[in-house]
Amino acid sequence: MTAPGHVTLVGAGPGDPELLTVRGARRLAEADLVLYDALSSEGMRDLAPHARWFYVGKRACRNSIDQDVLNRLMIKHALRGRHVVRLKCGDPFVFGRGGEEVLALGAAGIPVEVVPGLSTAIAAPALAGIPVTHRGLASSFAVITGHHEHTYGPLLDGFPPGALTLVVLMGVRQRASIASRLTARGWAPSTPAALVMGAATDKAWRWTGALTELGAVEIPASASDAPGMLVIGPVVSLADRMIQIMGGASSSQDRASRGSSG
Amino acid sequence: MTAPGHVTLVGAGPGDPELLTVRGARRLAEADLVLYDALSSEGMRDLAPHARWFYVGKRACRNSIDQDVLNRLMIKHALRGRHVVRLKCGDPFVFGRGGEEVLALGAAGIPVEVVPGLSTAIAAPALAGIPVTHRGLASSFAVITGHHEHTYGPLLDGFPPGALTLVVLMGVRQRASIASRLTARGWAPSTPAALVMGAATDKAWRWTGALTELGAVEIPASASDAPGMLVIGPVVSLADRMIQIMGGASSSQDRASRGSSG
Repeated sequence: MTAPGHVTLVGAGPGDPELLTVRGARRLAEADLVLYDALSSEGMRDLAPHARWFYVGKRACRNSIDQDVLNRLMIKHALRGRHVVRLKCGDPFVFGRGGEEVLALGAAGIPVEVVPGLSTAIAAPALAGIPVTHRGLASSFAVITGHHEHTYGPLLDGFPPGALTLVVLMGVRQRASIASRLTARGWAPSTPAALVMGAATDKAWRWTGALTELGAVEIPASASDAPGMLVIGPVVSLADRMIQIMGGASSSQDRASRGSSG
Repeated sequence: MTAPGHVTLVGAGPGDPELLTVRGARRLAEADLVLYDALSSEGMRDLAPHARWFYVGKRACRNSIDQDVLNRLMIKHALRGRHVVRLKCGDPFVFGRGGEEVLALGAAGIPVEVVPGLSTAIAAPALAGIPVTHRGLASSFAVITGHHEHTYGPLLDGFPPGALTLVVLMGVRQRASIASRLTARGWAPSTPAALVMGAATDKAWRWTGALTELGAVEIPASASDAPGMLVIGPVVSLADRMIQIMGGASSSQDRASRGSSG
């Protein structure tokens, strides 16, 4: 039997290969096999040109194969002595099922390393000109998923209206019901709100407006496949000015702002 | 007059230079002047050996000089044609006053770029073995600051008990009052809670236990100067097992786990 290999969970960040961590890029360069989610940038592949790349994801960064099958795949290749990189959208521990993967690998005796990545929950708003906190506007933020109303409903009901920035991942489809629930609980109809699609990718598009307008926003076909999120709270009012200032200096930010006139 | 330079706000992440982004490391290498917060790693300096390094921070990543003075310093050096890097703890837009710096520089006509960094709110728990979300334990999280009870109090009162992971930055001193407020609002006394100090630095130390024990935890002198945070919620129950698995593979994680027996 060969010596066991190991698995590194690498957070890919929002999609731009330059927004990987230095350690994440190094682990890719050392990899024999890369198991990757939907990648928003082909540039990632240049970082591990000699590895085998195997697609296990689908759009919006969810697995396309069963989690158990994926776990067994990682274990099998690690037991054969390979260095496996599991390249995950955003951060492995923010809705990435990274914890489950660590526990499954640990139970099989495989050494595991976790390299955090930029969470899209913070980086995607940033690239769209929205700081999740800002003195005088918001001193806290919450990140929730818009999958199940029985989960997010009680949270939305409990947040004091306008007192924090609300980031809703995987909630683009539920935007109308989320907006009405918040206004029913006392959030001002004029609360600034944003829809941020595909930040740091060439499908980047964003919309900003009032909470009551959020439900009716139409997403252009070019952006509708990209992972998206809602950002709700006073900090969204800074977006246009921030993008105007930052627009000239960074290619990612150029891309993030390009769609804002659409 | 020389052509104006520019300012790049770079998120340094939790302290380990390998956890900078690739772009952040590149901007440091290009810098003429680096204005930095309390750095938890001297290794950062190796990334910009030819730049002037000027200290503007203090412990826990807050400014030691007035924000207006700092803004004027950045503007002055950019107007002299320099590439200034403002190296900030964690992420520039998570309690980093990065938005204010962007607006001040923009008002002065200085080109600004923002390079996100790993927020300590997510990365520090991760390095201590705590995923902020985990299937079946938490599908959302909130990040608040423990500075002012009139700000965090209404938030704590509104969160449905145990329904999300609570990360409290700058709340180590208020741990007793935060814990009693939560139990008074219906959080189970046995809710898992953690104190995470100086993750990704050589002062790393953590404690995990029950919410009702949090108030009485004594922090060893070696860790008491490091920036710290509270993490409260069912995901904290994973920490020991996660560290046991991840401990062998990463130097950062080794450091994060070293203090856990203390």
